[in-house]
Amino acid sequence: MIRNIAILGASGYTGAELVRIIATHPYMRVAALSGERKAGQAMREVFPHLRHLDLPDLVKIEEIDFSGIDLAFCALPHATSQAVIAELPRDLKVVDLSADFRLREAADYEKWYGKPHTATDLQREAVYGLTEFYREEIRAARLVAGTGCNAATGQFALRPLIEAGVIDLDQIIMDLKCGVSGAGRALKENLLHAELSEGYHAYAVGGIHRHLGEFDQEFSKIAGRKVEVQFTPHLIPANRGILATVYVQGDAAAIHRTLSGAYADEPFLQVLPMGEAPSTRHVRGSNFCHLGVVQDRRDGRAIVVAALDNLTKGSSGQAVQNANLMLGIEETAGLMLAPVFP
Amino acid sequence: MIRNIAILGASGYTGAELVRIIATHPYMRVAALSGERKAGQAMREVFPHLRHLDLPDLVKIEEIDFSGIDLAFCALPHATSQAVIAELPRDLKVVDLSADFRLREAADYEKWYGKPHTATDLQREAVYGLTEFYREEIRAARLVAGTGCNAATGQFALRPLIEAGVIDLDQIIMDLKCGVSGAGRALKENLLHAELSEGYHAYAVGGIHRHLGEFDQEFSKIAGRKVEVQFTPHLIPANRGILATVYVQGDAAAIHRTLSGAYADEPFLQVLPMGEAPSTRHVRGSNFCHLGVVQDRRDGRAIVVAALDNLTKGSSGQAVQNANLMLGIEETAGLMLAPVFP
Amino acid sequence: MIRNIAILGASGYTGAELVRIIATHPYMRVAALSGERKAGQAMREVFPHLRHLDLPDLVKIEEIDFSGIDLAFCALPHATSQAVIAELPRDLKVVDLSADFRLREAADYEKWYGKPHTATDLQREAVYGLTEFYREEIRAARLVAGTGCNAATGQFALRPLIEAGVIDLDQIIMDLKCGVSGAGRALKENLLHAELSEGYHAYAVGGIHRHLGEFDQEFSKIAGRKVEVQFTPHLIPANRGILATVYVQGDAAAIHRTLSGAYADEPFLQVLPMGEAPSTRHVRGSNFCHLGVVQDRRDGRAIVVAALDNLTKGSSGQAVQNANLMLGIEETAGLMLAPVFP
Amino acid sequence: MIRNIAILGASGYTGAELVRIIATHPYMRVAALSGERKAGQAMREVFPHLRHLDLPDLVKIEEIDFSGIDLAFCALPHATSQAVIAELPRDLKVVDLSADFRLREAADYEKWYGKPHTATDLQREAVYGLTEFYREEIRAARLVAGTGCNAATGQFALRPLIEAGVIDLDQIIMDLKCGVSGAGRALKENLLHAELSEGYHAYAVGGIHRHLGEFDQEFSKIAGRKVEVQFTPHLIPANRGILATVYVQGDAAAIHRTLSGAYADEPFLQVLPMGEAPSTRHVRGSNFCHLGVVQDRRDGRAIVVAALDNLTKGSSGQAVQNANLMLGIEETAGLMLAPVFP
Repeated sequence: MIRNIAILGASGYTGAELVRIIATHPYMRVAALSGERKAGQAMREVFPHLRHLDLPDLVKIEEIDFSGIDLAFCALPHATSQAVIAELPRDLKVVDLSADFRLREAADYEKWYGKPHTATDLQREAVYGLTEFYREEIRAARLVAGTGCNAATGQFALRPLIEAGVIDLDQIIMDLKCGVSGAGRALKENLLHAELSEGYHAYAVGGIHRHLGEFDQEFSKIAGRKVEVQFTPHLIPANRGILATVYVQGDAAAIHRTLSGAYADEPFLQVLPMGEAPSTRHVRGSNFCHLGVVQDRRDGRAIVVAALDNLTKGSSGQAVQNANLMLGIEETAGLMLAPVFP
Repeated sequence: MIRNIAILGASGYTGAELVRIIATHPYMRVAALSGERKAGQAMREVFPHLRHLDLPDLVKIEEIDFSGIDLAFCALPHATSQAVIAELPRDLKVVDLSADFRLREAADYEKWYGKPHTATDLQREAVYGLTEFYREEIRAARLVAGTGCNAATGQFALRPLIEAGVIDLDQIIMDLKCGVSGAGRALKENLLHAELSEGYHAYAVGGIHRHLGEFDQEFSKIAGRKVEVQFTPHLIPANRGILATVYVQGDAAAIHRTLSGAYADEPFLQVLPMGEAPSTRHVRGSNFCHLGVVQDRRDGRAIVVAALDNLTKGSSGQAVQNANLMLGIEETAGLMLAPVFP
Repeated sequence: MIRNIAILGASGYTGAELVRIIATHPYMRVAALSGERKAGQAMREVFPHLRHLDLPDLVKIEEIDFSGIDLAFCALPHATSQAVIAELPRDLKVVDLSADFRLREAADYEKWYGKPHTATDLQREAVYGLTEFYREEIRAARLVAGTGCNAATGQFALRPLIEAGVIDLDQIIMDLKCGVSGAGRALKENLLHAELSEGYHAYAVGGIHRHLGEFDQEFSKIAGRKVEVQFTPHLIPANRGILATVYVQGDAAAIHRTLSGAYADEPFLQVLPMGEAPSTRHVRGSNFCHLGVVQDRRDGRAIVVAALDNLTKGSSGQAVQNANLMLGIEETAGLMLAPVFP
Repeated sequence: MIRNIAILGASGYTGAELVRIIATHPYMRVAALSGERKAGQAMREVFPHLRHLDLPDLVKIEEIDFSGIDLAFCALPHATSQAVIAELPRDLKVVDLSADFRLREAADYEKWYGKPHTATDLQREAVYGLTEFYREEIRAARLVAGTGCNAATGQFALRPLIEAGVIDLDQIIMDLKCGVSGAGRALKENLLHAELSEGYHAYAVGGIHRHLGEFDQEFSKIAGRKVEVQFTPHLIPANRGILATVYVQGDAAAIHRTLSGAYADEPFLQVLPMGEAPSTRHVRGSNFCHLGVVQDRRDGRAIVVAALDNLTKGSSGQAVQNANLMLGIEETAGLMLAPVFP
């Protein structure tokens, strides 16, 4: 049975990525697309690469008849998202890709996003959408909050290790490198090709990146105590990709064993043989995450490296994976697209 | 019914692209992979991005039992390819991706490739694999010769125009820009990232590129007279993509009408509205070709621009499209993957 | 003797490139910098790569005391430029990098730029700044109009050939590929890294690019009759560089001989041996232009390829070259910086 | 007075970079160039971007008459370099860019480079070429060993901090990102554009990169005890640039004060205001190193970020800086070239 899907905020990169995935999904079809500023346009005008698809035109959200919609993906900016979702039918299944429902506590949201949450009941209702760790809750959920793309990458590297107690919780340093599509389609000087190409830099240095809110929430919850990692993201002259290089203190063999065990049955999380490190080029355009563990020359220290595509496994792929669960579809449906290399 | 596929020469980029496409093809499975120098290795060692697939290890060709194989893709270098195919079972369906069987005449092969053809009977047997124009022959063929990637792009832009007689056959200039994956995985200084990145140049200037052999053969055949185009390829700092900018003399409206009419029912050939020009970024990773027609300010002159992905529509996607026909499968099966953008 | 230089509109890429060149120029120093929106900022805030230089802060133009200024570079947008220059002291030497004074005729300006010229007296006064062809006029000029970067490239390839009468004036096709810095630092969606990287396309197709105004003016003037070339620019995923591939009809040997002769004593125009084609990567960051001539397989046809750096020889380097002449300095002073490769 | 310079091993990227710098150096001229495999060729055949220079042809080393040479740069592979330098006149000033003379102890060389040193007397004679820290020794030296490019970057970030005792010596983690030109012009599959572009990865993970030999030697020497840092380099899809993100434990204000004080009079080492982080794009093509210090959200932790161009400040620029000192020339001569941006 084909489910009817609405994508709210379809004119951004995560919206386009959702359409790309659904284009060959066996059980979903795009039934409605919204885009405030581009309402009235055909999707092929906004994204010419989708020209071959028979898609509905972009409309304003209020023009959508949700009665025939089985699930809505909400790919709007944060703050906007909570206002929009609050107005949607309360029985509509929603996967939100914004930051609005990732943090459980209203105080945490205000701390990291700088203003009070305006839909705290929805915040309480939402399930955190890191599929591999919230599978059962997601299956039963009406509203799922997609994770931050950096947050997903770091958690794939660290959650089983914190859970198993094989690393020192006070000495976790995550140095992360992300491609520019993670910053979206916004018109900012520092996203111009001439500014970014052939150059790279750290940003949000010093522990101020908002995805730290997710790390703090999740890692502390698992550990049963406060855990604060150090985290520095870097912008890299590539379109897609996140590479997290995580420095931990613990036994490398135990770390590798723990990750391998935890992900043995996971279709999308691939642990490399001990000593190998992954590359972003090997996951591009796919829903896979590659993880590697290497022992440092200094005893008791190890490096965990995780690579994924920020737009797929880090965002829209994860969203479809969650939607599959929410709709009672096989979890991997539509998501086994192989990475595009070279 | 699932067909068993062998890929000979699977350690190059077109081999990897075949595996990528077959990974989500509903009716094909990879049953054998060969790679002379990499025989004995697992495919994931050669192409870590295929790590999630359950693939046979690379073997030498002579180790493959072809009795259970329904079709073989041959992604070997030219000259090697004719020698290998000559030794394969004579009833095995073969799609060759090399240049060995593209030219009908032994003399033409020797002229463009610098040595005599050693399997002229196969050369005579082979069908030229430009799917949209040789569909019926391909359906009936045992041996299909995949076209050059540049040759495919240029022919999509020009064949209907030559056929319809709407352009001056003596004034065709094709300026083509291709990404670096078209040059393969060979270890050459001019393919190094440090050499290519942030720079671009013309190569094989002056009418010496081998794909001219295909243009001459095909265009002359259609026109019923000798047609020689001017053709200059350029190497561009991008991995995938071919953009052919073709300067022709003729009525732009007639040209657009002719192309639109010819491709009205083609699933992969998309003609843009009059006056629009395509971009390689909108076809990357897909089997689509976008075509545009623009009138020049000088009456009687027009520019036709065609864009496709050299590894997909220009090579491995075309190969699968041909194989679908040869195996009695729906032509588009496995090939409706949407382009990856950004 | 050190000359005091003002740069008006110093917050764009051509402004930064002027500062880069002047930084090691033996006879110039930056005495004033203007930037309307960034007035009050230090140059290192706008361009951190210039942090090591002792530069004046950005101010508004009206705050500059021009009495001590020997020459002003005007790197403002077109239309703005004519208004600003009209208000400058009438004895101040000015090199304008905008499009405002490139076209001799008011009607031509209005045709290509869509509105009437508001300083037609200055338009008449201005000398066209293609140094190698207007050297004596520039030496005597007060106001010099820097050429379009594409216009410079194409003229280096073609002027001597038109002058010498060795090519067919009605069959000139110029296919040009330019890097993204040529589009400036404007916030446009199509200049984002995620949009441009790994993709390329033709733009202003059909003879509507404004630099055609310069080609028409200059080529017709040389030929003594109307000459209209075909011209298609392409945007390439590289920051710097212009590569013009020019298709002409004429004897290749005569063409090569003509170019070699014309540029034999030119320090910046380097003609390659017959049959070789240049690459943008070999001129990056420099004031050199490399030119090549290749005979086509079809008799009587040749390809001329010219490569330069749009920000240097195509814009700010040319501007300094002109300023050197206007100030009685050796023409090459400060401009012999070698290209940056890789 | 102009000094005559020989460059041995001029056909690699560091050789080309030396020529680029010397091209506008007021007191040096290239008098001899060697290249074993390319002997007999003109430099413009090997590096077309140097076409405008009047350079000697490449010869074999034994063909060079060193009697008129004031200083030789040796840009050969390690192991080759020690054999070649051992045969050079013993009074010839030499700046070696290989790894052969960086480590003081024969045992350390063997440990990191896998075979015994064959010129241990030269090894003892050589001065470590980190200019800012060995200025007086270099001025007096005959043989100077250029540092590793990563090693230089990391030491600029850390030496004053170790010296001043403001950071915990056992908790230093350096995550480094380098452009591909650092890997040289070798024909390796992983250096192909198609492999690297749009992808990035960690390599030599776990403390096995050879530049660790330099860190261990230098940091331990400064500290007066054994210091072992953690160090993970990453290959980034850019040609030039090194960005070292260094995680340290100590007071951020003290760290910033220490670096600022140490480099207050250094022409090439630029410390940014507290809280700012540098970018590789702002040092490209120059001899500058930009350094930033940011306080982490966790008290007592800071991030130091250093950016430089691996081919200039990390290699050939450093070499010229050292040669200036050895030849009694002003240290900054020829090296004040501004970075090339964009």
